[in-house]
Amino acid sequence: VEHTANVLLQLFALLVAAKIGDEIFKRLRQPALIGEILGGLVVGPSVLGIYQITDETLLFAEIGVVMLLFRVGLETRLHDLLRVGASALAVGMLGVILPFGGGFLLATLLDQSLAVAVFLAAALTATSVGITSRVLADLHAVRTRSGRVILGAAVIDDVLALLILAIAVGIAAGELSPLRIGAMGLAAIAFIAVVLLVGIWLLRSRRSILTEPRFAEGSPFLPGMIIMLGLAAAAAVIGLAAIIGAFLAGMVAGEASEKHALEEQVTPVAAFFTPFFFGAIGAQIDLAGIADLGVLTVLALVTLVAVATKFTGAFLGALSLGRARATLIGWGMVPRGEVGIVVAGIGLQLGAIDGDIYTVVVAMAILTTLLVPPLLPRLLRTAEPGIVPAMRRALGEAGAAPGREREALEEVGPT
Amino acid sequence: VEHTANVLLQLFALLVAAKIGDEIFKRLRQPALIGEILGGLVVGPSVLGIYQITDETLLFAEIGVVMLLFRVGLETRLHDLLRVGASALAVGMLGVILPFGGGFLLATLLDQSLAVAVFLAAALTATSVGITSRVLADLHAVRTRSGRVILGAAVIDDVLALLILAIAVGIAAGELSPLRIGAMGLAAIAFIAVVLLVGIWLLRSRRSILTEPRFAEGSPFLPGMIIMLGLAAAAAVIGLAAIIGAFLAGMVAGEASEKHALEEQVTPVAAFFTPFFFGAIGAQIDLAGIADLGVLTVLALVTLVAVATKFTGAFLGALSLGRARATLIGWGMVPRGEVGIVVAGIGLQLGAIDGDIYTVVVAMAILTTLLVPPLLPRLLRTAEPGIVPAMRRALGEAGAAPGREREALEEVGPT
Repeated sequence: VEHTANVLLQLFALLVAAKIGDEIFKRLRQPALIGEILGGLVVGPSVLGIYQITDETLLFAEIGVVMLLFRVGLETRLHDLLRVGASALAVGMLGVILPFGGGFLLATLLDQSLAVAVFLAAALTATSVGITSRVLADLHAVRTRSGRVILGAAVIDDVLALLILAIAVGIAAGELSPLRIGAMGLAAIAFIAVVLLVGIWLLRSRRSILTEPRFAEGSPFLPGMIIMLGLAAAAAVIGLAAIIGAFLAGMVAGEASEKHALEEQVTPVAAFFTPFFFGAIGAQIDLAGIADLGVLTVLALVTLVAVATKFTGAFLGALSLGRARATLIGWGMVPRGEVGIVVAGIGLQLGAIDGDIYTVVVAMAILTTLLVPPLLPRLLRTAEPGIVPAMRRALGEAGAAPGREREALEEVGPT
Repeated sequence: VEHTANVLLQLFALLVAAKIGDEIFKRLRQPALIGEILGGLVVGPSVLGIYQITDETLLFAEIGVVMLLFRVGLETRLHDLLRVGASALAVGMLGVILPFGGGFLLATLLDQSLAVAVFLAAALTATSVGITSRVLADLHAVRTRSGRVILGAAVIDDVLALLILAIAVGIAAGELSPLRIGAMGLAAIAFIAVVLLVGIWLLRSRRSILTEPRFAEGSPFLPGMIIMLGLAAAAAVIGLAAIIGAFLAGMVAGEASEKHALEEQVTPVAAFFTPFFFGAIGAQIDLAGIADLGVLTVLALVTLVAVATKFTGAFLGALSLGRARATLIGWGMVPRGEVGIVVAGIGLQLGAIDGDIYTVVVAMAILTTLLVPPLLPRLLRTAEPGIVPAMRRALGEAGAAPGREREALEEVGPT
């Protein structure tokens, strides 16, 4: 009984703290997810110590980001993603190569071992799909052209980062089989292709699958959740991140005719679970560990490299879309998060990196996350002028008169 | 990454197995929750071993039963419960006294120590609110008079069982303070009273609390979940079961004007989480542990005593409502579950009982759960004839012609 009480209390404290932070930041017209992260920091071990990082409480964070990506997947149309495929690929590739090179160079200059250099470099590569998609969703910008390029590129660089992780683990273990890495890469691409093709074909040809009347009392929610959990697990099992499976599941379910009913039911559930994810990020900030001049210096250098290389890579990759969009996309790709932290966590577990480097990676992920959201509204206004009315309303800005006409404008959306 | 993959895979396997069992039993016109339990048994450690009992996976089961009780609370009107208060109190009290006496006597006859006798007796007292409310909900009988008596009595005997647990822990620890037990009892009653009075007053006087437009985008789901998690945690902290807090939270939220919107959103989410609870019950069946003649004999005796004493106590308590209803209520109170298993778990943890007695208690809880659902439709038809059309439809029986007239009949409900 006491154990249950403790876990429930921690989850409650984290949820309430994150939501309070969220509300305060919304009222200050600042990005809500930063409020959630800071709420988590306050109740976490570094400050009040009410919420503790345990496997059990982190499971809720994991479900939170899985739900978030499922919801974002629902809003993403495969057809739209394919139209921006070439740009997304260029942004994703350059946005991985430059940060990896920069991280590797920095670690070498700091006189670190090969294993540290590879892990640090790998941890800098992946843009946080969770964070960027939350920022885009808050600004109603998921379906703009820039939004789609950012999302597509973030998924691509997650896949690349996880391949690099496999290489890094091989180096740390002293064994590096190009065959295994090649196999992993093929498995990842095959997984994505098979899921999309089979999933969409199934849902289109027998579209009753989500609402067979005797199943789940006609609501598409439960079948949707089963697909989400199944693909998240499958992606994690073959070595991809669970969130990629969840994103694909959302994209597949989004092709079903019940998309709108599903979206309506998933939105409140995702709103319940996602604060656990952002709150847990904040709770993982180790204030005491950072308060050291040496660590702070490394942190400043790593963050500088992380921002500069990712921005440059993504900007160059997106230049064909014009300077305004390239600037937006460059900044939009900067936030690091779950995958970088996972990479560093595995490095720590294998003994390849030490606690200080781990703390630096987590802090870098949080700093890049805090940096970007305040910049995006302005950049979006220049790059995607069609989004302005919906965005104004989302930010609660003066002069935004919500009405049917604006609603309609948002529905059509910019392309 | 591997750890996440493992947890997600286990949750997925449990969910799918439970839902397949659910579907098969629905098609066979048998109670769906038994299908879920058996699905859990099949993927659990006793058979396939895909799903393992861990703190992390059990957290989902806990959230499942918390969600279930919240949903049942939403359907339960305080006003209705109070109208059956006297009967529920009689059923609850007698339904605790007889099983406790019977269990204690049996343990003494089996030559067990005082500590074992007290723990075994305590484990027999509490009717499973989770199981009975699921059975009642599946039959659309939550709001019949018998349904309300069963629910009210099940909540009352949970409170009593948790007080008895406190006594049992005192005996096992060799220290028994009547003051502490009295204090716990008062705290429990005060908690329930304060939650109901304050909660309902708040929601009625400032009913915008669930849908303040800037909060949760106008959906009552997130505020409802915060209330649920908060009261579940609070109940667990003061030594009551988390599910009692969740039930109260549901009852309070059910008084809000947004009740219907909330119910619509909670139903699919509860349908997603509850299979984890029933599946986990099945997974906890230790087939190898039971397959022993001595254990089987004790199990048969304990189950016999559990069924006979609970039926008799509840039947006598409900006799003022007529024989038909008393019979229904007597059987309806028989299923044991979460609280009995929790009591036995704590006894095992303290070393007061051994693994065999624990296995017997878990198996008894499952047997009583399997026994009752097949009996209830027939008993309900005699005791609450008004429920027949809705029930027929729920069971998919021939001759049930769903139509607006019957819908209307169900809405008015029998009293």
